[in-house]
Amino acid sequence: MALISRKIAEALANGSMVRKMFEVGRELKAKHGAEKVFDYSLGNPDPPPPPAFHEKIRELLAQNRPGLHGYMPNAGWPEVREKVAAYLSQKVPAGVPSFTPDNIVMTVGAAGALNAILKSLLDPGDEVIVLAPYFMEYAFYVDNHGGILKVAETDPSFRPDPEALLAAMGPRTRAVLVNSPNNPTGAIYTAAELRAVGEALTLGSAKTEKPIFLISDEPYRKINFTGTEAPWIFAAYPYSVMATSFSKDLSIPGERLGYAAIHPGLESLEGAGLSAALTLANRVLGSVSAPSLAQLAVCDLLEIEAGAKIYERRSALLSRELRALGYTLTPAEGTFYLFPQSPIPDDLAFVDFLRESLVLAVPGAGFGRRGYFRLSLCLDEGAIERSLPGFARARKLALARA
Amino acid sequence: MALISRKIAEALANGSMVRKMFEVGRELKAKHGAEKVFDYSLGNPDPPPPPAFHEKIRELLAQNRPGLHGYMPNAGWPEVREKVAAYLSQKVPAGVPSFTPDNIVMTVGAAGALNAILKSLLDPGDEVIVLAPYFMEYAFYVDNHGGILKVAETDPSFRPDPEALLAAMGPRTRAVLVNSPNNPTGAIYTAAELRAVGEALTLGSAKTEKPIFLISDEPYRKINFTGTEAPWIFAAYPYSVMATSFSKDLSIPGERLGYAAIHPGLESLEGAGLSAALTLANRVLGSVSAPSLAQLAVCDLLEIEAGAKIYERRSALLSRELRALGYTLTPAEGTFYLFPQSPIPDDLAFVDFLRESLVLAVPGAGFGRRGYFRLSLCLDEGAIERSLPGFARARKLALARA
Repeated sequence: MALISRKIAEALANGSMVRKMFEVGRELKAKHGAEKVFDYSLGNPDPPPPPAFHEKIRELLAQNRPGLHGYMPNAGWPEVREKVAAYLSQKVPAGVPSFTPDNIVMTVGAAGALNAILKSLLDPGDEVIVLAPYFMEYAFYVDNHGGILKVAETDPSFRPDPEALLAAMGPRTRAVLVNSPNNPTGAIYTAAELRAVGEALTLGSAKTEKPIFLISDEPYRKINFTGTEAPWIFAAYPYSVMATSFSKDLSIPGERLGYAAIHPGLESLEGAGLSAALTLANRVLGSVSAPSLAQLAVCDLLEIEAGAKIYERRSALLSRELRALGYTLTPAEGTFYLFPQSPIPDDLAFVDFLRESLVLAVPGAGFGRRGYFRLSLCLDEGAIERSLPGFARARKLALARA
Repeated sequence: MALISRKIAEALANGSMVRKMFEVGRELKAKHGAEKVFDYSLGNPDPPPPPAFHEKIRELLAQNRPGLHGYMPNAGWPEVREKVAAYLSQKVPAGVPSFTPDNIVMTVGAAGALNAILKSLLDPGDEVIVLAPYFMEYAFYVDNHGGILKVAETDPSFRPDPEALLAAMGPRTRAVLVNSPNNPTGAIYTAAELRAVGEALTLGSAKTEKPIFLISDEPYRKINFTGTEAPWIFAAYPYSVMATSFSKDLSIPGERLGYAAIHPGLESLEGAGLSAALTLANRVLGSVSAPSLAQLAVCDLLEIEAGAKIYERRSALLSRELRALGYTLTPAEGTFYLFPQSPIPDDLAFVDFLRESLVLAVPGAGFGRRGYFRLSLCLDEGAIERSLPGFARARKLALARA
């Protein structure tokens, strides 16, 4: 390790709990057979991409237009940004101005969008607040750009707590990062909750030199079981920017395609320059641009979604069965995650009991909330059914030995 | 600009000279007609990708294997890394150990590879030395990870100067970044020159706590007019890592695919952990992984190259004609760039004269060497021929008014 940077060496020593479980899973599968191991650890969408995705690619290859695989403006193909802007304009509530292509920057997934956003906003030492439990990669993304991660807790049902949020804000707060539909809890914030978050940011901005930004990470937006569209941050707060991807919508996480969308009132609000900043950040962070063929393939598939119904059935099935086994959990409103309570306070120990029963999960500690564990529903209903004895056994073992 | 980070605001104010010219080019083309404007500014490969690239994609879509567009290990598909490792093993000189998949990390282009490498190596305040003239994006890449860019000049023929390099090294030097075949000069370093660079690094490492790394950016390796393969850094110095891409080989810069290759002796050398570090850096910088379909499509096309002969003819044609017009230039040994001397010392002023003559070029100031300008040969021979009167006129104007 002697040769690498201190931060990377430290991160490697700590490891990613999700990824570690991924490795453990490979070993267990090799030993016991893949069908005997129930891997709820990694969120790797398993429904096939919609057939239209391959059709679009075939069509583009057949057209073979010059520059199909060439450089385009760093913000992405203008026609793609045009279509995304039109799509969003039609989606957001009345009162939010229409999006233009200038509000859209195509990125290498939502992770690429978040990194470009954070690079655009943060000076060294600036703080970014996340609502716990939260996706742990955020800590890296904030640190990449010299930022400091601060945590505000959500309430026991994982709803945002505006007072806790306001209390976490200080003179160096530069942004609040929310994630709804939420990984790991499956919570979808209501319009009223987002407005309350927005009000907290307005109040918090009184303590800071510049308005605090609301960053919303929304890759799970279309995996929504509530029957009503997930509310938009753009209606809740003006200094807002969204990061999203096509990874979950179209089951194409390996193709690395997403975008950032800037509140359309923002550029005019005070010539914030965020559009140019995001474009530059996207370029210099190493992405240069989002992948070309994928951009052109998805831009006519903005309404499509590959697996929400599948995930909804899995989520209902496993929630019901886990409760029947004595587990306590808040039902997910969306995403392909469940975040049940650990039957014993030590979630790390409980996840070991699960693993002994050939069920792989990630401890709540991996999301900044002890006493819970995350299940990723990227395996089919048959496998979920077959995994239930493992959940029963792990709970019994844990309670007996605790 | 008030809302964005200081560094990004500053970078936007300075602008990229290449990109600025790209914008100017669009305006001039709109005004005078595209065929009247000769755009030598941006390096956007124009030969079509080899037909095998589309054939491979069609084949993969037809197979439609599960997970084709899904997440894979952050370092890339194991089978792809296996093929890249086998390809490199067969290419490098005897004496360099064979590459294994652990030596390879698939990335979002060479830019993604360089960012992952720099993040893996640099602690804040560490220095990275580049040889001028150099690709200006390096300054961003080094700064992204808290590094400080230092410049060592090459000689008047753009050959590396080991003494200048050694003089530039100090206790905080962490890496030297070379780029051969070189953008903007077209120079290809000989094996002896690379060995001399390696010896300078060995000497320089005596001043530092850890060995100084040699990073080699080689996206133009296959655009080589010398008749012999460009020498490999791996034979010149043990602490070395290469960044490259398929952008120029296959004319697919928009697809964002490249890789980092670690010296195969390095992991055993002292358990450097660089493989794990690069994989982590690739993940957390926002790439997560290189695009999936593109990885699988190119891994059987490692020997293929789309445009070297085309660029060689253009390079020879324009070099000959510019000399006939009175320009002084060192012929390029590779790449699709020429880096002639400006007829007047002020390259910024000269590039304005060229622009008045509807020829777009980038001033040497954009590469850290005044008194020169860069021409990117991404336009066909007919256009090159038609652009010659513009070069003649600009030179005359410049000499008359200077």
